[in-house]
Amino acid sequence: MTKPIILKRRGLMLVLSSPSGAGKTTLSRMLLASEPDLVMSVSVTTRPMRPGEVEGKDYYFISEAEFSKQRDSGALLEHAKVFDHHYGTPSGSVNTALANGKDVLFDIDWQGTQQLKVNAREDLVAVFILPPSRNDLQSRLTTRAQDSAEVVAGRMAKASDEMSHWPEYDYVVINDDLEAAHTQMRTILATERMKPERQIGLSDFVTKLREGK
Amino acid sequence: MTKPIILKRRGLMLVLSSPSGAGKTTLSRMLLASEPDLVMSVSVTTRPMRPGEVEGKDYYFISEAEFSKQRDSGALLEHAKVFDHHYGTPSGSVNTALANGKDVLFDIDWQGTQQLKVNAREDLVAVFILPPSRNDLQSRLTTRAQDSAEVVAGRMAKASDEMSHWPEYDYVVINDDLEAAHTQMRTILATERMKPERQIGLSDFVTKLREGK
Repeated sequence: MTKPIILKRRGLMLVLSSPSGAGKTTLSRMLLASEPDLVMSVSVTTRPMRPGEVEGKDYYFISEAEFSKQRDSGALLEHAKVFDHHYGTPSGSVNTALANGKDVLFDIDWQGTQQLKVNAREDLVAVFILPPSRNDLQSRLTTRAQDSAEVVAGRMAKASDEMSHWPEYDYVVINDDLEAAHTQMRTILATERMKPERQIGLSDFVTKLREGK
Repeated sequence: MTKPIILKRRGLMLVLSSPSGAGKTTLSRMLLASEPDLVMSVSVTTRPMRPGEVEGKDYYFISEAEFSKQRDSGALLEHAKVFDHHYGTPSGSVNTALANGKDVLFDIDWQGTQQLKVNAREDLVAVFILPPSRNDLQSRLTTRAQDSAEVVAGRMAKASDEMSHWPEYDYVVINDDLEAAHTQMRTILATERMKPERQIGLSDFVTKLREGK
Protein backbone atom coordinates (compact mmCIF):
# COMPACT_ATOMS: atom_id res chain seq x y z
CA MET A 1 0.00 0.00 0.00
CA THR A 2 1.31 3.40 -1.00
CA LYS A 3 1.61 6.33 1.36
CA PRO A 4 -1.72 8.21 1.46
CA ILE A 5 -1.77 11.66 -0.08
CA ILE A 6 -2.70 14.17 2.59
CA LEU A 7 -3.61 17.63 1.37
CA LYS A 8 -3.81 20.61 3.69
CA ARG A 9 -7.43 21.18 4.67
CA ARG A 10 -9.52 23.79 6.40
CA GLY A 11 -11.42 22.51 9.44
CA LEU A 12 -15.20 22.54 9.69
CA MET A 13 -17.70 23.52 12.37
CA LEU A 14 -19.73 20.52 13.45
CA VAL A 15 -22.99 21.52 15.12
CA LEU A 16 -24.96 19.00 17.14
CA SER A 17 -28.49 19.94 18.14
CA SER A 18 -31.26 17.82 19.63
CA PRO A 19 -34.02 17.89 22.20
CA SER A 20 -32.68 17.00 25.64
CA GLY A 21 -32.94 13.29 26.20
CA ALA A 22 -31.74 12.31 22.72
CA GLY A 23 -28.18 11.46 23.73
CA LYS A 24 -26.39 14.49 22.31
CA THR A 25 -24.01 14.95 25.26
CA THR A 26 -22.97 11.29 25.20
CA LEU A 27 -22.48 11.40 21.42
CA SER A 28 -20.35 14.55 21.72
CA ARG A 29 -18.13 12.84 24.28
CA MET A 30 -17.77 9.73 22.07
CA LEU A 31 -16.86 11.86 19.05
CA LEU A 32 -14.26 13.90 20.94
CA ALA A 33 -12.70 10.61 22.10
CA SER A 34 -12.65 8.97 18.65
CA GLU A 35 -11.70 11.98 16.52
CA PRO A 36 -8.32 13.48 17.45
CA ASP A 37 -8.81 16.40 15.03
CA LEU A 38 -12.09 17.45 16.66
CA VAL A 39 -12.03 19.99 19.49
CA MET A 40 -14.87 21.36 21.60
CA SER A 41 -15.80 25.00 21.15
CA VAL A 42 -15.27 26.97 24.36
CA SER A 43 -17.87 29.68 24.96
CA VAL A 44 -17.64 32.96 26.81
CA THR A 45 -20.15 33.51 29.61
CA THR A 46 -21.07 36.20 32.11
CA ARG A 47 -22.24 33.73 34.72
CA PRO A 48 -20.02 33.13 37.76
CA MET A 49 -17.56 30.24 37.73
CA ARG A 50 -18.79 27.16 39.59
CA PRO A 51 -16.61 24.94 41.79
CA GLY A 52 -14.54 22.59 39.66
CA GLU A 53 -14.84 24.65 36.47
CA VAL A 54 -11.68 25.68 34.65
CA GLU A 55 -11.19 29.02 32.85
CA GLY A 56 -10.60 28.38 29.14
CA LYS A 57 -11.74 24.78 29.36
CA ASP A 58 -15.37 24.93 30.49
CA TYR A 59 -15.86 28.60 29.61
CA TYR A 60 -14.09 31.89 29.32
CA PHE A 61 -15.61 33.80 32.23
CA ILE A 62 -16.03 37.45 31.30
CA SER A 63 -17.79 40.57 32.64
CA GLU A 64 -21.02 42.04 31.28
CA ALA A 65 -19.04 44.97 29.89
CA GLU A 66 -16.59 42.68 28.10
CA PHE A 67 -19.47 40.59 26.72
CA SER A 68 -21.21 43.68 25.31
CA LYS A 69 -17.95 44.84 23.77
CA GLN A 70 -17.33 41.47 22.06
CA ARG A 71 -20.93 41.17 20.85
CA ASP A 72 -21.12 44.72 19.51
CA SER A 73 -17.80 44.46 17.68
CA GLY A 74 -18.92 41.28 15.88
CA ALA A 75 -16.44 39.06 17.72
CA LEU A 76 -19.12 36.49 18.61
CA LEU A 77 -20.35 33.94 16.06
CA GLU A 78 -23.53 33.40 18.06
CA HIS A 79 -24.81 34.41 21.47
CA ALA A 80 -27.81 33.84 23.72
CA LYS A 81 -29.21 34.94 27.05
CA VAL A 82 -30.24 32.09 29.35
CA PHE A 83 -32.01 33.28 32.49
CA ASP A 84 -29.86 36.21 33.65
CA HIS A 85 -26.61 35.29 31.98
CA HIS A 86 -25.08 35.76 28.54
CA TYR A 87 -23.29 33.06 26.55
CA GLY A 88 -21.46 33.39 23.26
CA THR A 89 -19.01 31.76 20.85
CA PRO A 90 -15.88 33.86 20.23
CA SER A 91 -14.91 33.79 16.55
CA GLY A 92 -11.16 34.23 17.12
CA SER A 93 -10.35 30.82 18.62
CA VAL A 94 -12.71 29.05 16.21
CA ASN A 95 -11.06 30.63 13.19
CA THR A 96 -7.59 29.74 14.45
CA ALA A 97 -8.65 26.10 14.88
CA LEU A 98 -10.25 25.94 11.40
CA ALA A 99 -7.20 27.49 9.75
CA ASN A 100 -5.05 24.81 11.44
CA GLY A 101 -7.20 22.01 10.01
CA LYS A 102 -8.99 21.27 13.29
CA ASP A 103 -12.75 20.69 13.38
CA VAL A 104 -14.73 22.43 16.10
CA LEU A 105 -17.72 20.82 17.82
CA PHE A 106 -20.70 22.93 18.93
CA ASP A 107 -23.41 21.74 21.26
CA ILE A 108 -26.05 24.42 20.64
CA ASP A 109 -29.79 24.71 20.00
CA TRP A 110 -31.64 25.75 16.83
CA GLN A 111 -31.34 29.44 17.68
CA GLY A 112 -27.56 29.29 17.93
CA THR A 113 -27.45 27.21 14.74
CA GLN A 114 -29.44 29.84 12.89
CA GLN A 115 -26.94 32.51 13.93
CA LEU A 116 -23.99 30.33 12.84
CA LYS A 117 -25.69 29.83 9.48
CA VAL A 118 -25.71 33.57 8.96
CA ASN A 119 -22.15 34.10 10.19
CA ALA A 120 -20.29 30.98 9.04
CA ARG A 121 -22.40 29.01 6.53
CA GLU A 122 -19.46 27.69 4.50
CA ASP A 123 -17.72 26.09 7.46
CA LEU A 124 -20.89 24.69 8.99
CA VAL A 125 -22.02 21.06 9.09
CA ALA A 126 -25.21 20.97 11.15
CA VAL A 127 -26.52 17.65 12.46
CA PHE A 128 -29.82 17.13 14.26
CA ILE A 129 -30.11 14.14 16.61
CA LEU A 130 -33.56 12.59 17.03
CA PRO A 131 -34.72 10.05 19.62
CA PRO A 132 -35.97 6.72 18.18
CA SER A 133 -39.54 7.08 19.50
CA ARG A 134 -41.83 9.24 21.56
CA ASN A 135 -41.96 6.61 24.30
CA ASP A 136 -38.19 6.52 24.46
CA LEU A 137 -38.00 10.32 24.69
CA GLN A 138 -40.67 10.44 27.39
CA SER A 139 -38.90 7.86 29.55
CA ARG A 140 -35.56 9.69 29.15
CA LEU A 141 -37.24 12.97 30.18
CA THR A 142 -38.73 11.35 33.29
CA THR A 143 -35.53 11.63 35.25
CA ARG A 144 -36.94 10.88 38.67
CA ALA A 145 -39.88 8.69 39.72
CA GLN A 146 -41.44 11.63 41.53
CA ASP A 147 -41.51 13.89 38.42
CA SER A 148 -45.09 15.12 38.07
CA ALA A 149 -47.04 14.60 34.84
CA GLU A 150 -46.99 18.39 34.34
CA VAL A 151 -43.21 18.59 34.61
CA VAL A 152 -42.72 15.78 32.07
CA ALA A 153 -45.34 17.31 29.75
CA GLY A 154 -43.48 20.62 29.90
CA ARG A 155 -40.21 18.92 28.97
CA MET A 156 -41.95 17.09 26.11
CA ALA A 157 -43.36 20.38 24.80
CA LYS A 158 -39.89 21.93 24.86
CA ALA A 159 -38.46 18.89 23.04
CA SER A 160 -41.24 19.13 20.48
CA ASP A 161 -40.40 22.79 19.80
CA GLU A 162 -36.72 21.96 19.32
CA MET A 163 -37.55 19.04 16.97
CA SER A 164 -39.68 21.27 14.74
CA HIS A 165 -36.41 22.74 13.42
CA TRP A 166 -34.94 19.54 11.92
CA PRO A 167 -35.34 20.73 8.29
CA GLU A 168 -32.80 23.52 8.93
CA TYR A 169 -30.03 20.93 9.42
CA ASP A 170 -27.71 19.32 6.87
CA TYR A 171 -28.14 15.84 8.37
CA VAL A 172 -30.54 14.09 10.70
CA VAL A 173 -29.34 11.12 12.77
CA ILE A 174 -31.84 8.93 14.63
CA ASN A 175 -30.18 7.80 17.84
CA ASP A 176 -31.67 4.34 18.21
CA ASP A 177 -28.34 2.73 19.06
CA LEU A 178 -25.48 4.86 20.42
CA GLU A 179 -22.69 3.02 18.58
CA ALA A 180 -24.60 3.17 15.27
CA ALA A 181 -25.28 6.89 15.73
CA HIS A 182 -21.62 7.44 16.61
CA THR A 183 -20.55 5.64 13.41
CA GLN A 184 -23.00 7.72 11.37
CA MET A 185 -21.55 10.91 12.84
CA ARG A 186 -18.00 9.78 11.98
CA THR A 187 -19.11 8.93 8.43
CA ILE A 188 -20.59 12.40 8.01
CA LEU A 189 -17.39 13.95 9.35
CA ALA A 190 -15.18 11.87 7.01
CA THR A 191 -17.28 12.85 4.01
CA GLU A 192 -17.50 16.54 4.80
CA ARG A 193 -13.73 16.68 5.26
CA MET A 194 -13.38 15.45 1.65
CA LYS A 195 -15.31 18.36 0.17
CA PRO A 196 -13.11 20.17 -2.37
CA GLU A 197 -13.78 23.61 -0.87
CA ARG A 198 -12.13 22.39 2.37
CA GLN A 199 -9.09 20.86 0.60
CA ILE A 200 -6.88 23.91 0.54
CA GLY A 201 -4.07 22.05 -1.25
CA LEU A 202 -6.25 20.65 -4.05
CA SER A 203 -5.89 23.47 -6.54
CA ASP A 204 -2.07 23.26 -6.49
CA PHE A 205 -2.22 19.47 -6.62
CA VAL A 206 -4.30 19.52 -9.82
CA THR A 207 -2.10 22.20 -11.38
CA LYS A 208 0.89 19.89 -10.88
CA LEU A 209 -1.03 16.98 -12.41
CA ARG A 210 -2.00 19.08 -15.42
CA GLU A 211 1.21 20.96 -16.05
CA GLY A 212 3.83 18.85 -14.38
CA LYS A 213 5.15 21.76 -12.32
CA MET B 1 -28.68 -3.90 19.81
CA THR B 2 -32.09 -2.62 18.79
CA LYS B 3 -33.52 -2.99 15.31
CA PRO B 4 -32.32 -0.09 13.14
CA ILE B 5 -34.91 2.42 12.05
CA ILE B 6 -35.09 2.42 8.26
CA LEU B 7 -36.98 5.29 6.68
CA LYS B 8 -38.10 5.24 3.06
CA ARG B 9 -35.59 7.17 0.99
CA ARG B 10 -35.25 8.55 -2.51
CA GLY B 11 -32.23 7.25 -4.42
CA LEU B 12 -29.45 9.50 -5.67
CA MET B 13 -27.52 9.83 -8.92
CA LEU B 14 -23.83 9.10 -8.35
CA VAL B 15 -21.67 10.54 -11.10
CA LEU B 16 -18.07 9.41 -11.51
CA SER B 17 -15.85 11.42 -13.83
CA SER B 18 -12.08 11.29 -14.31
CA PRO B 19 -9.42 11.44 -16.98
CA SER B 20 -8.87 8.02 -18.51
CA GLY B 21 -6.17 6.20 -16.64
CA ALA B 22 -7.40 7.21 -13.18
CA GLY B 23 -9.14 3.93 -12.37
CA LYS B 24 -12.76 5.03 -12.77
CA THR B 25 -13.93 1.86 -14.51
CA THR B 26 -12.37 -0.39 -11.86
CA LEU B 27 -13.85 1.75 -9.06
CA SER B 28 -17.30 1.61 -10.69
CA ARG B 29 -17.11 -2.17 -10.82
CA MET B 30 -16.02 -2.38 -7.16
CA LEU B 31 -18.86 -0.08 -6.09
CA LEU B 32 -21.50 -2.03 -8.00
CA ALA B 33 -20.23 -5.21 -6.34
CA SER B 34 -20.17 -3.79 -2.79
CA GLU B 35 -23.37 -1.71 -2.91
CA PRO B 36 -26.51 -3.77 -3.56
CA ASP B 37 -28.68 -0.64 -3.82
CA LEU B 38 -26.52 0.86 -6.57
CA VAL B 39 -27.36 0.16 -10.22
CA MET B 40 -25.61 1.23 -13.39
CA SER B 41 -27.36 3.72 -15.63
CA VAL B 42 -28.12 2.20 -19.05
CA SER B 43 -27.81 4.67 -21.93
CA VAL B 44 -29.54 4.79 -25.27
CA THR B 45 -27.28 4.84 -28.34
CA THR B 46 -27.64 5.03 -32.09
CA ARG B 47 -24.48 3.01 -32.73
CA PRO B 48 -24.87 -0.60 -33.92
CA MET B 49 -24.84 -3.40 -31.38
CA ARG B 50 -21.47 -5.17 -31.10
CA PRO B 51 -21.04 -8.92 -30.66
CA GLY B 52 -21.64 -9.93 -27.05
CA GLU B 53 -23.61 -6.81 -26.15
CA VAL B 54 -27.05 -7.18 -24.61
CA GLU B 55 -30.01 -4.88 -25.29
CA GLY B 56 -31.08 -3.15 -22.05
CA LYS B 57 -27.90 -4.18 -20.24
CA ASP B 58 -25.06 -2.55 -22.19
CA TYR B 59 -27.26 -0.05 -24.02
CA TYR B 60 -30.71 0.48 -25.40
CA PHE B 61 -30.02 0.43 -29.14
CA ILE B 62 -32.30 2.91 -30.92
CA SER B 63 -32.62 4.55 -34.34
CA GLU B 64 -31.60 8.10 -35.19
CA ALA B 65 -35.27 9.05 -35.49
CA GLU B 66 -36.10 7.60 -32.07
CA PHE B 67 -33.06 9.38 -30.56
CA SER B 68 -34.15 12.76 -31.98
CA LYS B 69 -37.68 12.19 -30.69
CA GLN B 70 -36.46 11.37 -27.16
CA ARG B 71 -34.02 14.28 -27.10
CA ASP B 72 -36.49 16.84 -28.44
CA SER B 73 -39.25 15.77 -26.03
CA GLY B 74 -36.92 16.23 -23.04
CA ALA B 75 -36.79 12.51 -22.27
CA LEU B 76 -32.98 12.51 -22.01
CA LEU B 77 -31.20 13.76 -18.89
CA GLU B 78 -28.00 14.28 -20.90
CA HIS B 79 -26.77 13.38 -24.35
CA ALA B 80 -23.61 13.59 -26.45
CA LYS B 81 -22.37 12.84 -29.93
CA VAL B 82 -19.16 10.78 -30.06
CA PHE B 83 -17.78 10.43 -33.58
CA ASP B 84 -20.88 9.62 -35.67
CA HIS B 85 -23.08 8.21 -32.96
CA HIS B 86 -25.43 9.63 -30.37
CA TYR B 87 -25.59 8.59 -26.75
CA GLY B 88 -28.04 9.65 -24.05
CA THR B 89 -29.45 8.92 -20.60
CA PRO B 90 -33.21 8.25 -20.60
CA SER B 91 -34.90 9.95 -17.65
CA GLY B 92 -37.70 7.41 -17.30
CA SER B 93 -35.72 4.43 -16.00
CA VAL B 94 -33.55 6.68 -13.80
CA ASN B 95 -36.59 8.24 -12.14
CA THR B 96 -38.18 4.84 -11.52
CA ALA B 97 -34.99 3.63 -9.84
CA LEU B 98 -34.69 6.78 -7.68
CA ALA B 99 -38.34 6.58 -6.60
CA ASN B 100 -37.71 2.97 -5.52
CA GLY B 101 -34.79 4.01 -3.32
CA LYS B 102 -32.12 2.73 -5.71
CA ASP B 103 -29.01 4.79 -6.46
CA VAL B 104 -27.92 5.10 -10.08
CA LEU B 105 -24.26 5.19 -11.12
CA PHE B 106 -23.15 7.31 -14.10
CA ASP B 107 -19.79 7.01 -15.79
CA ILE B 108 -19.76 10.28 -17.78
CA ASP B 109 -17.43 13.16 -18.54
CA TRP B 110 -17.63 16.80 -17.44
CA GLN B 111 -19.95 17.72 -20.32
CA GLY B 112 -22.52 15.07 -19.34
CA THR B 113 -22.16 16.11 -15.70
CA GLN B 114 -22.91 19.74 -16.59
CA GLN B 115 -26.12 18.66 -18.32
CA LEU B 116 -27.16 16.52 -15.34
CA LYS B 117 -26.55 19.50 -13.07
CA VAL B 118 -29.07 21.51 -15.08
CA ASN B 119 -31.63 18.69 -15.29
CA ALA B 120 -31.30 16.87 -11.97
CA ARG B 121 -29.25 18.93 -9.49
CA GLU B 122 -31.10 17.78 -6.35
CA ASP B 123 -30.51 14.09 -7.02
CA LEU B 124 -26.90 14.51 -8.10
CA VAL B 125 -23.75 13.56 -6.20
CA ALA B 126 -20.82 14.24 -8.51
CA VAL B 127 -17.40 12.77 -7.72
CA PHE B 128 -14.19 13.48 -9.60
CA ILE B 129 -11.42 10.86 -9.48
CA LEU B 130 -7.84 12.09 -9.76
CA PRO B 131 -4.67 10.06 -10.33
CA PRO B 132 -2.07 10.31 -7.52
CA SER B 133 0.64 11.91 -9.69
CA ARG B 134 1.51 13.01 -13.20
CA ASN B 135 4.03 10.18 -13.53
CA ASP B 136 1.42 7.63 -12.55
CA LEU B 137 -1.06 9.06 -15.08
CA GLN B 138 1.54 9.10 -17.84
CA SER B 139 2.51 5.47 -17.28
CA ARG B 140 -1.16 4.41 -17.23
CA LEU B 141 -1.74 6.26 -20.50
CA THR B 142 1.23 4.54 -22.12
CA THR B 143 -0.70 1.38 -22.82
CA ARG B 144 1.76 -0.21 -25.19
CA ALA B 145 5.55 0.04 -25.35
CA GLN B 146 5.35 1.17 -28.96
CA ASP B 147 3.07 4.18 -28.21
CA SER B 148 4.78 7.20 -29.73
CA ALA B 149 5.61 10.25 -27.62
CA GLU B 150 3.02 12.21 -29.66
CA VAL B 151 0.23 9.72 -28.94
CA VAL B 152 0.96 9.77 -25.18
CA ALA B 153 1.23 13.58 -25.21
CA GLY B 154 -2.17 13.76 -26.91
CA ARG B 155 -3.72 11.54 -24.24
CA MET B 156 -2.10 13.65 -21.51
CA ALA B 157 -3.55 16.83 -23.05
CA LYS B 158 -7.02 15.27 -23.11
CA ALA B 159 -6.62 14.16 -19.46
CA SER B 160 -5.48 17.66 -18.55
CA ASP B 161 -8.61 19.18 -20.16
CA GLU B 162 -10.86 16.78 -18.25
CA MET B 163 -9.08 17.51 -14.95
CA SER B 164 -9.57 21.26 -15.35
CA HIS B 165 -13.25 20.68 -14.41
CA TRP B 166 -12.67 19.31 -10.89
CA PRO B 167 -14.17 22.37 -9.12
CA GLU B 168 -17.58 21.57 -10.65
CA TYR B 169 -17.80 18.37 -8.59
CA ASP B 170 -19.17 17.81 -5.08
CA TYR B 171 -16.24 15.60 -4.06
CA VAL B 172 -12.74 14.86 -5.31
CA VAL B 173 -11.14 11.48 -4.57
CA ILE B 174 -7.45 10.91 -5.22
CA ASN B 175 -7.03 7.32 -6.35
CA ASP B 176 -3.67 6.50 -4.85
CA ASP B 177 -4.78 3.13 -3.50
CA LEU B 178 -7.83 1.40 -5.02
CA GLU B 179 -9.18 -0.01 -1.75
CA ALA B 180 -8.82 3.36 0.00
CA ALA B 181 -10.56 5.16 -2.89
CA HIS B 182 -13.32 2.52 -2.84
CA THR B 183 -13.84 3.07 0.89
CA GLN B 184 -13.95 6.84 0.36
CA MET B 185 -16.62 6.39 -2.32
CA ARG B 186 -18.69 4.19 0.00
CA THR B 187 -18.34 6.76 2.80
CA ILE B 188 -19.60 9.52 0.48
CA LEU B 189 -22.52 7.31 -0.57
CA ALA B 190 -23.44 6.48 3.05
CA THR B 191 -23.39 10.17 4.00
CA GLU B 192 -25.34 11.43 1.01
CA ARG B 193 -28.03 8.80 1.67
CA MET B 194 -28.51 10.33 5.15
CA LYS B 195 -29.39 13.79 3.82
CA PRO B 196 -32.82 14.79 5.11
CA GLU B 197 -34.09 15.79 1.66
CA ARG B 198 -33.61 12.15 0.56
CA GLN B 199 -35.32 10.68 3.65
CA ILE B 200 -38.87 10.65 2.37
CA GLY B 201 -40.22 9.18 5.63
CA LEU B 202 -38.54 11.71 7.93
CA SER B 203 -41.28 14.31 8.05
CA ASP B 204 -43.89 11.76 9.19
CA PHE B 205 -41.40 10.27 11.65
CA VAL B 206 -40.83 13.65 13.34
CA THR B 207 -44.57 14.42 13.38
CA LYS B 208 -45.11 11.19 15.33
CA LEU B 209 -42.31 12.09 17.74
CA ARG B 210 -43.78 15.53 18.30
CA GLU B 211 -47.46 14.75 18.48
CA GLY B 212 -47.54 11.08 19.35
CA LYS B 213 -49.77 10.18 16.40
